[in-house]
Amino acid sequence: MRPLVFNLHSNPLLAAEITKQLEAEEGVLNQRQFPDQESYLRIDSDCQQRDCVIYCNLYQPNDKIMSLLFLAETLRELGAKRIALVTPYLCYMRQDKRFQTGECVSAIPFGKLISNYFDHLITIDPHLHRIHHLDEVYQIPSQIVKASPLIADWVSDHVDNPVFLGPDSESEQWVADVAKRAGAPHLILEKTRHGDRNVEISVPNLNQWKSHTPVLVDDIISSGRTMLTTLEQISNLGFNRPYCIGVHGIFADEAYMELRQYSEVITTETIPHPSNKIEISSALCTAIRTWLRS
Amino acid sequence: MRPLVFNLHSNPLLAAEITKQLEAEEGVLNQRQFPDQESYLRIDSDCQQRDCVIYCNLYQPNDKIMSLLFLAETLRELGAKRIALVTPYLCYMRQDKRFQTGECVSAIPFGKLISNYFDHLITIDPHLHRIHHLDEVYQIPSQIVKASPLIADWVSDHVDNPVFLGPDSESEQWVADVAKRAGAPHLILEKTRHGDRNVEISVPNLNQWKSHTPVLVDDIISSGRTMLTTLEQISNLGFNRPYCIGVHGIFADEAYMELRQYSEVITTETIPHPSNKIEISSALCTAIRTWLRS
Repeated sequence: MRPLVFNLHSNPLLAAEITKQLEAEEGVLNQRQFPDQESYLRIDSDCQQRDCVIYCNLYQPNDKIMSLLFLAETLRELGAKRIALVTPYLCYMRQDKRFQTGECVSAIPFGKLISNYFDHLITIDPHLHRIHHLDEVYQIPSQIVKASPLIADWVSDHVDNPVFLGPDSESEQWVADVAKRAGAPHLILEKTRHGDRNVEISVPNLNQWKSHTPVLVDDIISSGRTMLTTLEQISNLGFNRPYCIGVHGIFADEAYMELRQYSEVITTETIPHPSNKIEISSALCTAIRTWLRS
Repeated sequence: MRPLVFNLHSNPLLAAEITKQLEAEEGVLNQRQFPDQESYLRIDSDCQQRDCVIYCNLYQPNDKIMSLLFLAETLRELGAKRIALVTPYLCYMRQDKRFQTGECVSAIPFGKLISNYFDHLITIDPHLHRIHHLDEVYQIPSQIVKASPLIADWVSDHVDNPVFLGPDSESEQWVADVAKRAGAPHLILEKTRHGDRNVEISVPNLNQWKSHTPVLVDDIISSGRTMLTTLEQISNLGFNRPYCIGVHGIFADEAYMELRQYSEVITTETIPHPSNKIEISSALCTAIRTWLRS
């Protein structure tokens, strides 16, 4: 039987594209709010003995969690065979260490919660910093879809003579991979973080790269401080207009407007935003197919 | 050691009153939102080996759930002895039966979720209709605080010569109890429900009660249709201005304004609202003390 793909509070075009590529069936949900703002949920597809994919983008997750758990639990109760969660952005991965006594290291309870309800997790480049592998916080099998080939392909197709700039040593491995795939050089900057929105960047001597187009890449663009500080420092050095490329474009406050003053801002589709240019559906489908065959 | 009482997204005055009555210590939380709207939570009280009460009113629950689970999990990890959830309004109790194929009977997964994180549950008059006992959906011990003595006392103190009117046979036992405690008569109406906001009410002959003040009581006032239809039918019969009393005042849309045209609208404090007149803190504290001693 064909698998079912349910779109929960996420981009319907992307969900439809995934359903089409997988030759799956669209899962039909009936949802509304009661007068007391509790959620009503009805599954109008027969899920008995079928593999079910829930496409729920857990960006800004708090008010999506209740219906996500209800949907998983109801599918299970109605006889679904296996249930996979596909979230292009995996939330709560940045709170990965207790810096002060009493802090909630939310990556851990969030992983435990999701693991209680799903058989499998598919996501794109989660923030793996102090947590080195999803298995440390998720008790279910997971697949990580890499954005580096997607970004490399996009840059190869759209940018003349790129030089990749990575924000800090932590990102080096990832930036080097993107650059190698695009057949271009890369440089790593030195970042010192003083708070959520306060960073200091040291830019190396860039004279030998004057004929290149700077391409700043990072996994998450949130406040955009890192990229903005870098852009300001290289703005008068005579380069072509730089590109800022992020896997996940969160763009807190005015970050997007500010970055656009100095650069072309490009993101993958993991978080819906006007800067989305890099498609993710094929890469997600490859991972989903691997799970369906397993 | 004194128990800790944490107020999570709920009425701080009520939480403070409960803390005071219990001679407990106020649990100190540090909370904020990251730029990506994920929640930060830090517990600034020492909870090791202590009983912890989380006062979190689960009215409009969806966006409170994430921090509630994070708080419980973090308390547990930091060595809390036992954790009780105190929610004056217990959400998701009205979806208690599958009326159509595929519906989520949310009372069940919600009960299971809460039971995974807490040792004990205290609430006020949950909607027990097709579910007859909380143990059917909660796997942890629970205590139900009855609002009937609180309502009876308030009516005895504030209403001359009351006659209680219950909306339907389902409510009879509860209305009879309130009336008996207040030493007043009661009548039961006949209700037929055609939808969330569409009800039909049959009012019995009320001539013999003309010298009384009608007091309409119900557990939940949501759309207010039941009470409003009743009020319209008795509005020209020459009674004193009626009272509408609810345990839980949800008041969808214009319900409160509409009811006030015909009546004095009174609720308990289970859901914060201008109609709150009936205090709940002492009754909650009695239940919390029972748990603390157990």
